[in-house]
Amino acid sequence: MSTETGRSRRDLRRELHRHPEPAWCEFYTTARVVEECRRIGVDELHVGPDAIDAGARMAVPDEDTLAEWYERALADGADEAVLAQLRGGHTGAIAVLERGDGPTVGLRVDIDALQIREADTDDHRPADEGFRSDHEGYMHACGHDGHTTIGLGVLEAVADSDFQGTLKVVFQPAEERVGGGRAVAESGHLDDVDYLYAVHLGLDHPSGEVVAGIDDFLAVSHVLAEFEGESAHAGAHPEQGRNAVQAMAAAIQNLYAIPRHEDGATRVNAGRAGGGTATNIVPEEAFVEGEVRGETTELMHYMKDHAERVIQSAAEMHDCEVTLSTEGQAPSARSDQPLVDAFAAEAADVDGVDRVVERDALGGSEDATYLMKRVQEHGGLACYVCVGTDHPGGHHTPTFDVDEESLAVGIDALTRSIQRVAAQRP
Amino acid sequence: MSTETGRSRRDLRRELHRHPEPAWCEFYTTARVVEECRRIGVDELHVGPDAIDAGARMAVPDEDTLAEWYERALADGADEAVLAQLRGGHTGAIAVLERGDGPTVGLRVDIDALQIREADTDDHRPADEGFRSDHEGYMHACGHDGHTTIGLGVLEAVADSDFQGTLKVVFQPAEERVGGGRAVAESGHLDDVDYLYAVHLGLDHPSGEVVAGIDDFLAVSHVLAEFEGESAHAGAHPEQGRNAVQAMAAAIQNLYAIPRHEDGATRVNAGRAGGGTATNIVPEEAFVEGEVRGETTELMHYMKDHAERVIQSAAEMHDCEVTLSTEGQAPSARSDQPLVDAFAAEAADVDGVDRVVERDALGGSEDATYLMKRVQEHGGLACYVCVGTDHPGGHHTPTFDVDEESLAVGIDALTRSIQRVAAQRP
Amino acid sequence: MSTETGRSRRDLRRELHRHPEPAWCEFYTTARVVEECRRIGVDELHVGPDAIDAGARMAVPDEDTLAEWYERALADGADEAVLAQLRGGHTGAIAVLERGDGPTVGLRVDIDALQIREADTDDHRPADEGFRSDHEGYMHACGHDGHTTIGLGVLEAVADSDFQGTLKVVFQPAEERVGGGRAVAESGHLDDVDYLYAVHLGLDHPSGEVVAGIDDFLAVSHVLAEFEGESAHAGAHPEQGRNAVQAMAAAIQNLYAIPRHEDGATRVNAGRAGGGTATNIVPEEAFVEGEVRGETTELMHYMKDHAERVIQSAAEMHDCEVTLSTEGQAPSARSDQPLVDAFAAEAADVDGVDRVVERDALGGSEDATYLMKRVQEHGGLACYVCVGTDHPGGHHTPTFDVDEESLAVGIDALTRSIQRVAAQRP
Amino acid sequence: MSTETGRSRRDLRRELHRHPEPAWCEFYTTARVVEECRRIGVDELHVGPDAIDAGARMAVPDEDTLAEWYERALADGADEAVLAQLRGGHTGAIAVLERGDGPTVGLRVDIDALQIREADTDDHRPADEGFRSDHEGYMHACGHDGHTTIGLGVLEAVADSDFQGTLKVVFQPAEERVGGGRAVAESGHLDDVDYLYAVHLGLDHPSGEVVAGIDDFLAVSHVLAEFEGESAHAGAHPEQGRNAVQAMAAAIQNLYAIPRHEDGATRVNAGRAGGGTATNIVPEEAFVEGEVRGETTELMHYMKDHAERVIQSAAEMHDCEVTLSTEGQAPSARSDQPLVDAFAAEAADVDGVDRVVERDALGGSEDATYLMKRVQEHGGLACYVCVGTDHPGGHHTPTFDVDEESLAVGIDALTRSIQRVAAQRP
Repeated sequence: MSTETGRSRRDLRRELHRHPEPAWCEFYTTARVVEECRRIGVDELHVGPDAIDAGARMAVPDEDTLAEWYERALADGADEAVLAQLRGGHTGAIAVLERGDGPTVGLRVDIDALQIREADTDDHRPADEGFRSDHEGYMHACGHDGHTTIGLGVLEAVADSDFQGTLKVVFQPAEERVGGGRAVAESGHLDDVDYLYAVHLGLDHPSGEVVAGIDDFLAVSHVLAEFEGESAHAGAHPEQGRNAVQAMAAAIQNLYAIPRHEDGATRVNAGRAGGGTATNIVPEEAFVEGEVRGETTELMHYMKDHAERVIQSAAEMHDCEVTLSTEGQAPSARSDQPLVDAFAAEAADVDGVDRVVERDALGGSEDATYLMKRVQEHGGLACYVCVGTDHPGGHHTPTFDVDEESLAVGIDALTRSIQRVAAQRP
Repeated sequence: MSTETGRSRRDLRRELHRHPEPAWCEFYTTARVVEECRRIGVDELHVGPDAIDAGARMAVPDEDTLAEWYERALADGADEAVLAQLRGGHTGAIAVLERGDGPTVGLRVDIDALQIREADTDDHRPADEGFRSDHEGYMHACGHDGHTTIGLGVLEAVADSDFQGTLKVVFQPAEERVGGGRAVAESGHLDDVDYLYAVHLGLDHPSGEVVAGIDDFLAVSHVLAEFEGESAHAGAHPEQGRNAVQAMAAAIQNLYAIPRHEDGATRVNAGRAGGGTATNIVPEEAFVEGEVRGETTELMHYMKDHAERVIQSAAEMHDCEVTLSTEGQAPSARSDQPLVDAFAAEAADVDGVDRVVERDALGGSEDATYLMKRVQEHGGLACYVCVGTDHPGGHHTPTFDVDEESLAVGIDALTRSIQRVAAQRP
Repeated sequence: MSTETGRSRRDLRRELHRHPEPAWCEFYTTARVVEECRRIGVDELHVGPDAIDAGARMAVPDEDTLAEWYERALADGADEAVLAQLRGGHTGAIAVLERGDGPTVGLRVDIDALQIREADTDDHRPADEGFRSDHEGYMHACGHDGHTTIGLGVLEAVADSDFQGTLKVVFQPAEERVGGGRAVAESGHLDDVDYLYAVHLGLDHPSGEVVAGIDDFLAVSHVLAEFEGESAHAGAHPEQGRNAVQAMAAAIQNLYAIPRHEDGATRVNAGRAGGGTATNIVPEEAFVEGEVRGETTELMHYMKDHAERVIQSAAEMHDCEVTLSTEGQAPSARSDQPLVDAFAAEAADVDGVDRVVERDALGGSEDATYLMKRVQEHGGLACYVCVGTDHPGGHHTPTFDVDEESLAVGIDALTRSIQRVAAQRP
Repeated sequence: MSTETGRSRRDLRRELHRHPEPAWCEFYTTARVVEECRRIGVDELHVGPDAIDAGARMAVPDEDTLAEWYERALADGADEAVLAQLRGGHTGAIAVLERGDGPTVGLRVDIDALQIREADTDDHRPADEGFRSDHEGYMHACGHDGHTTIGLGVLEAVADSDFQGTLKVVFQPAEERVGGGRAVAESGHLDDVDYLYAVHLGLDHPSGEVVAGIDDFLAVSHVLAEFEGESAHAGAHPEQGRNAVQAMAAAIQNLYAIPRHEDGATRVNAGRAGGGTATNIVPEEAFVEGEVRGETTELMHYMKDHAERVIQSAAEMHDCEVTLSTEGQAPSARSDQPLVDAFAAEAADVDGVDRVVERDALGGSEDATYLMKRVQEHGGLACYVCVGTDHPGGHHTPTFDVDEESLAVGIDALTRSIQRVAAQRP
């Protein structure tokens, strides 16, 4: 890899870092990805609505939010023709290289950012070196700017190589809300993929370390319950109210009390809740936005079924209506051994790698699992790898940053692994 | 009144005091009432199933309990032929005197006792003078032995007078469980009553004082909720259970939280609750036995509707079934002024009365209200009076007793009032 | 009353209507009141911190809010010297007329507005005639603009009369949050008042009707509970969290379940509640902002004591801390008969009054009760009167408005009543 | 083993089966064990209070229950002198054989029975062959009659062998309530034990199968919470009550809602709960009897700490007092590999064994873990083995029975294992 290439990768990552966009608002990012893919030269490019099953999107923000980010992207100089394709929150892209006979290999990277205000102190490199977030209150605090850069880097490296087969690089939106994985999976684009890699930077592994197989994804579902009752003056006519805050409280108490399960770990959290307008008004509206998780997809569904029943009954108990919606979801998944072996073998030879961990647990959730499951259900193999990077602050904190040297490590290790599995059909 | 009569009344009251019988088990008491009515000579006598609408009874005990008290009555020498009519918990009687043209006047007394162990110390007169309860654990702790005696005394006094019209004396079972009033009301026997009096001794009024109109009966309903879930080993298979104790707890918490009502006082109490069998078993069964009250019948129904919805939803919330039953009920009622006036006027002239209170509040519940409402709905008037009596212990306590001098006061005041209203149609 | 006076009153009321200010932000209003008092000519004028006990204020907004409204008042042309006295939310004023020997009579009016967006349709007179709120989102939707005008009108009328004695007109801030009454009461300015009137427009009484004695103020207390726990990742480390939302839910459920009280009506409402930041984070913070009420001050304190214990225990139950603050409070009170009689007698002769109601119930809360209690405790008499006014929308709704003809009715009836009680010492 | 021995073992097991005794009431059983130990001839015999730390007993029944079972044992002909030592619920025994130099080996068996009514149909062998429980309502439904027989059989077999070292056979009371293990462990008798075996029959393993190492004991603690409030008439004086049933309900709801833990499985169950006396009385007393479990002892304590805080806070919330007591407890434990290996090796050669499972999970709780931990903490090794037996009904059901052929299998396998570990110090 030439220094030139290294510099341009760093520049690209920093440009993306300056333009963090939340779920389904990755207008600028998608437009830039498309531009880069065209520069590299690909055989097919599925953009926005062509890359996803739009009806399967979850956690799509409201029209006003979508319009606001669209305008920002336009103002920041994103390609107007591409943007037009993405209208209404249809972001993301899939780039395809067709290089003759051979297996179809997939690589999935995610592209969205978080609603976190980035640190602005001098010891935070993006602030110090001038590539801190342009969008105050939003930040690439989980490294997806790096992931996007790696995805483009692998695409370019494979394009320049003697790779035989088909490569599909997926630039997936809305991972942070576990809202995009299903839409990509249900697009069908991965149904012919034989081997799928997904990649994440960091995860508390330092620069120089890689993990060949990440497992123990907790299946997760985000649920929004909106209670509607009827307001009344709490002093004068308490009996005329139908109290949505009482329904909310009964729901919360009983959500946490869903029975534990012998088959493994379960989780539940009423992460956000609220309701009411004034001390003297019986609350008409309230909500709970929470999540359930399970060590397996079945356990997550066990929790979800119970949660929905608890919420419905809490509403009925206080004579309220409730609307339930799934705001995000992801199954659990497991990395397949042959792909783990291939990555471990290749990564060991990559410059800058000094330790290869075979497997490690995530213990959190990720909607790459939708893509992994889809591939596995169609007879393919899937594997989620981690490329260590020194990160000063933890993931999802204002001082998160990546060691830019790790970008090359990720690109090289993945490019080699993709070539290896395409060549020898593990 | 001759001393002879006074003595026999005292003897009768003491005999009844020795034979306290709970709701729908007043076999001995009913048989003795029938015997006395026959001695007095009445024109009609409706006994047991003929005095009540059997299907409208509430709080009927199980067959074993009924059979046990039936056997006790038999063993205590009650008339076997009368008992045979009462089988299956069909107790109570209505005695009718027909004395030519004139209004139909009713008098209601209640005849049942409580599950309380009577005091056995020397300062408790029934213990000291040998008429303490023969049925250990049961006691006439609310004066219904006196009420029954008054009912028979009035019947005899009116029979011996120049009264013109019809008198119906109701000996009502199961007042303590508010389980008998509805069955008498729905028998229809009171539908032609023009003026109805009901009477209670004591109520914290001393000997010498009477109250001409008792009001502010809280309407009440007793509700039994029986939850059924599914048991499971709590350590090995917690998810296989459907937890009736969780349903019970959710119900209790939310029952007390039914909104207050602008129209007046409401009450709720989960007076008894329980469930489960062992620490390591997810509870399959649980129950709540409680009550709701309201300052008006409407307020009671407001509470009852809410309570039933809370209980149903709590069951659903924990995937349990629930069976709801009404174990007792009584509306609220108000004493009509003309009857209050009549009683006040006559009572003032009765020997032993030194103070007449026009009206006072009960603040509790009583199912005489079913009878009062029935009469009022058919165009008649109704009034609930109180005859003060020095009672050493409070109502429903082991040291309750009545001043036997009050029996004559009650008989005289009621007899005079009945004659007055029959004569002048207030 | 000259037409001239009538027009200037209307203009003043409309000017105040255009400048609605919330609790403790009545900077413009106070400055205008001061200006008017000076024009009328008073003997003493207590402004801002001199009119209140600053430490007894409740529901004071944060510094930023105070500063923002201060700047608005300045921009709107309020007297800079007066404003300087009010800094930091020390609003309100007390004007004193000393007219020789005689009783001290007080009149209390309130001056604050509500956070409601005023209607802007043509059928809403303030919109149609150009005096709709200048402060979008805030509105005089309870008539305090009229009350302030009446207070100044009475001051001027009494000043121009042969009144003998002392008159104190209180312009009280922060009534809508029941946050200002205590601060005025504890200032001590009313301790020598012999007769106190307070006045309200409307209350569903039409133009032409007055009520001489308003009663049945529910005592009220506004409570804010802020729970603090500890956040944690809900999937990875659920046990590391201390869940403020669980504490909040347990508090809400049990607040509504505080036992009812035999002595009279009680109320409780968790009017606003909320907490948490994200679905996957165990919530660190949550709050409940609610109120308790009682038919008497004692009943309110019964509810408040229970509420505080419930909230404290709910916090402990989930290992959280909680900070409790009283955001507003008012006792109950009763209008004294001699003042009711005086107002009834005088109002009957006022032009435009066609019906005098002796007494009516408020059924809500008002912190004039603090002033009434203070006067009564110091041996004086107090009375709360209502001047009916046709109001198209209900109190606290966007279409509320007053019939400006009622202003003169209120001024005349109060002026005459004040003169009467000063003259004859009722 | 002679047929003679086999027959007498079967007779002994059947005699014990006819005399099931619950926790700390094993008077007859202990007396018979002592008698048998004396017949066999032991070097030391610790009986009752000498075998346990009396202050460390848990789940000891009340005096009346202890006295009743003491009298039954006396009536059934148990040795009066031995019984006198056991008074007050000090049951159990430890028999010691000293056979020269060599390691100290321990064997623990449990001796108590369950409160279950034994089946009385012909297809239940104990009923058919005349050794069904003499104590109606109590039953050896978990095979402890067999365990006791095995303990005595091993004692006799080792006594008759050339074993070198010390053997301690522990006959432990109160396992079914996890109430006895701690008392034996804290007696100190096991502190010098180098190798400890514990044994259980059945556990769903058929005759012919043995398990060399049972693991995954869930640590458990049984907690009894007794709430005390104050009664009041629910209609007349609801505010005078302090409602123990409300405290109970709040505790139950929040007990189930203790946060899950990342380190492994946890459990909680409010297995029994109840309170109150009558529908119209605010409940004065209530209780929750429940349990918490954890995959590790630490997890159990995490749950227990939370449970205790929840219960205390629920009591405070409703102004009640609460008394908390630990009614039984057991840590988790793991079988040591060397003892697993030794048992697996020897059992394979035992007559009647056709399958040796190396390890299996219990998934429930057992207080042998107290003894295992104690030995392991003092540097020894411990192992829990299972001897399969065809059991017609499940453990803790009325039709449970053991295949008596398994007794010899257990005795032989354990005797050989004890000799092996004594000989070669694994």
